[in-house]
Amino acid sequence: MNWGKAMEKKTQKHGKSVVKMRDVAALANVSIATVSRYLNGNLDRMSADTADRVADAIDKLNYVPNSAARQMVKKSSGLVAVVAGNIDDFFSTEMFKGINAMLESKGYIGVLFDSNSDLDREKHLMQIVSNQYFDGAILQPYNTVQVIRETIKRPMPIVMADREIEQSPWPQVVTNNYEVARQATQYYKDKGFKRVIMITSSLSMAANRRDRYYGIQSVINNIDVLEVSEKSYNHKKVLEQLTTLINGSQEDTLIFALKERWLTEFIPRLFYMGLIDNDHVAVTGFSDTGTAQYIDAKTKLIAQNPYLIGASSGEIMLNMLEGKHRDPEKIVVPAKFG
Amino acid sequence: MNWGKAMEKKTQKHGKSVVKMRDVAALANVSIATVSRYLNGNLDRMSADTADRVADAIDKLNYVPNSAARQMVKKSSGLVAVVAGNIDDFFSTEMFKGINAMLESKGYIGVLFDSNSDLDREKHLMQIVSNQYFDGAILQPYNTVQVIRETIKRPMPIVMADREIEQSPWPQVVTNNYEVARQATQYYKDKGFKRVIMITSSLSMAANRRDRYYGIQSVINNIDVLEVSEKSYNHKKVLEQLTTLINGSQEDTLIFALKERWLTEFIPRLFYMGLIDNDHVAVTGFSDTGTAQYIDAKTKLIAQNPYLIGASSGEIMLNMLEGKHRDPEKIVVPAKFG
Repeated sequence: MNWGKAMEKKTQKHGKSVVKMRDVAALANVSIATVSRYLNGNLDRMSADTADRVADAIDKLNYVPNSAARQMVKKSSGLVAVVAGNIDDFFSTEMFKGINAMLESKGYIGVLFDSNSDLDREKHLMQIVSNQYFDGAILQPYNTVQVIRETIKRPMPIVMADREIEQSPWPQVVTNNYEVARQATQYYKDKGFKRVIMITSSLSMAANRRDRYYGIQSVINNIDVLEVSEKSYNHKKVLEQLTTLINGSQEDTLIFALKERWLTEFIPRLFYMGLIDNDHVAVTGFSDTGTAQYIDAKTKLIAQNPYLIGASSGEIMLNMLEGKHRDPEKIVVPAKFG
Repeated sequence: MNWGKAMEKKTQKHGKSVVKMRDVAALANVSIATVSRYLNGNLDRMSADTADRVADAIDKLNYVPNSAARQMVKKSSGLVAVVAGNIDDFFSTEMFKGINAMLESKGYIGVLFDSNSDLDREKHLMQIVSNQYFDGAILQPYNTVQVIRETIKRPMPIVMADREIEQSPWPQVVTNNYEVARQATQYYKDKGFKRVIMITSSLSMAANRRDRYYGIQSVINNIDVLEVSEKSYNHKKVLEQLTTLINGSQEDTLIFALKERWLTEFIPRLFYMGLIDNDHVAVTGFSDTGTAQYIDAKTKLIAQNPYLIGASSGEIMLNMLEGKHRDPEKIVVPAKFG
């Protein structure tokens, strides 16, 4: 507020700008302090409606803050916020490394926020990103487009990473979840596998998981789904559930892990227990790093490329930061089976 | 610079403060702009010597910036920077989760920077942390105290996490690396193991790894050290080196992995290859999460508690942010064997 008043005074004194902050405030029917807060990006306790009214008034009056104010409003921190789904997964950390490799080529730095697979927490983090001087945001969100729009009120470049959203207002970098899950399942179907046990985090929470599920289902529809909570689960109990499921059918069974964490956590034990013979019981899944592929020499996995997804997201962000207009395009970084 | 001049003008006009910014500049023998940059925390292109002179002059003259300037200098972003060693390790990400759990209890948020095990990169990130409005910094550094001091010029609360530094100027949260490595080695020595193959990242880079090494060495000094670069290594070649080392002696051999990543990446393959029988060849190592402990039922590991190390670091940071004076104390969060 102090800065807002100081700015206005300077504007009046120099007389360079005809439209003043108070004119904007009057048209928007808000206080000068509110306009100042808007210009400062302090939108925390401002309703979306108020922010819209101020933006409209600035637009209608063609209000140009003086150079000091403009500098402040446009102040570049050189920091790009990355709001990741859950840094317990290699996927998020590898993606972050890819984002940084690209951003740093132009002197920007990515900083990582961890939403911890929690919708409310993610929303809170997006509020912080909106209120602080980040130059842009790369999101791997669980919340809907509508929630993101209402939460990040400050105009800033936004890129969706690893999230496929229909009619997205922002560029998105995605992977071929449906196709590659379908391809892997077909490979095992051709070898005689007729049934799938799928290990996944909550299906309702993320569209990319559902896409993988639909891809599997399009080939083999005899699927047992085992959902494991990312936040709390009992390792022994999950292993027991898996064992029961494996032993519960005579059909040749494919165990399909939808994320690397479940592969590395549960599959080695199943091998030791002699439950996977690659003949009647085989395993596949999505992997992010080299670690999972060394579980067993005969196991074929789907290799994602989180680093490249990150680098592509970083590249789009750099273009946006440099003012090159980008349509809300969709870039597909394909995962590969086998 | 604009802000600095604006501030000074206001100070003169209101006449509340006798000492002016120009007095500070004169005594420090720098420009007013430099004083302004100092007050704004823009210390990027300022030498440590210049910053010290300005700080001294402010101190000697008892210069008090006016309320607007003070507000700006003291501006709280609510963000605490966490500069982690390498987020490829579960240790760093778990520690970050622990830090956040604590910080958020008082409304702060931790943001993660990844130094990627690179000294220069870490230094660059610390410069950024120093220049931006972070309220504090929790560091897991590879650089020396001297480098950190020269790099983070802005006065801010600093906590060392997972790093033991002699005569540290900052509070530190460490683990009992030497003792627990010694304890684990003694357990296997008592069972007849006479030789150790140690898998580690660069020993010269981190004191905590050296402490572990000394702990092992104090019990069994017949050690083959296999250093694996965190940045680039060939999985197959490392496996071959391990195989050669295991087969190169008739003595009962303990394989000791100094970090979880090497445990999960190489040990399962050694089991499959029939090289570990828990009788003549056994394995142990430092683990950070539940994943490693499921490699083999008979394997006893050292369980670190990165989450608790993070939470303790976060708690100290909160105390410092709230102005409670903390001596550069050392808190030990012990790792547990077995």
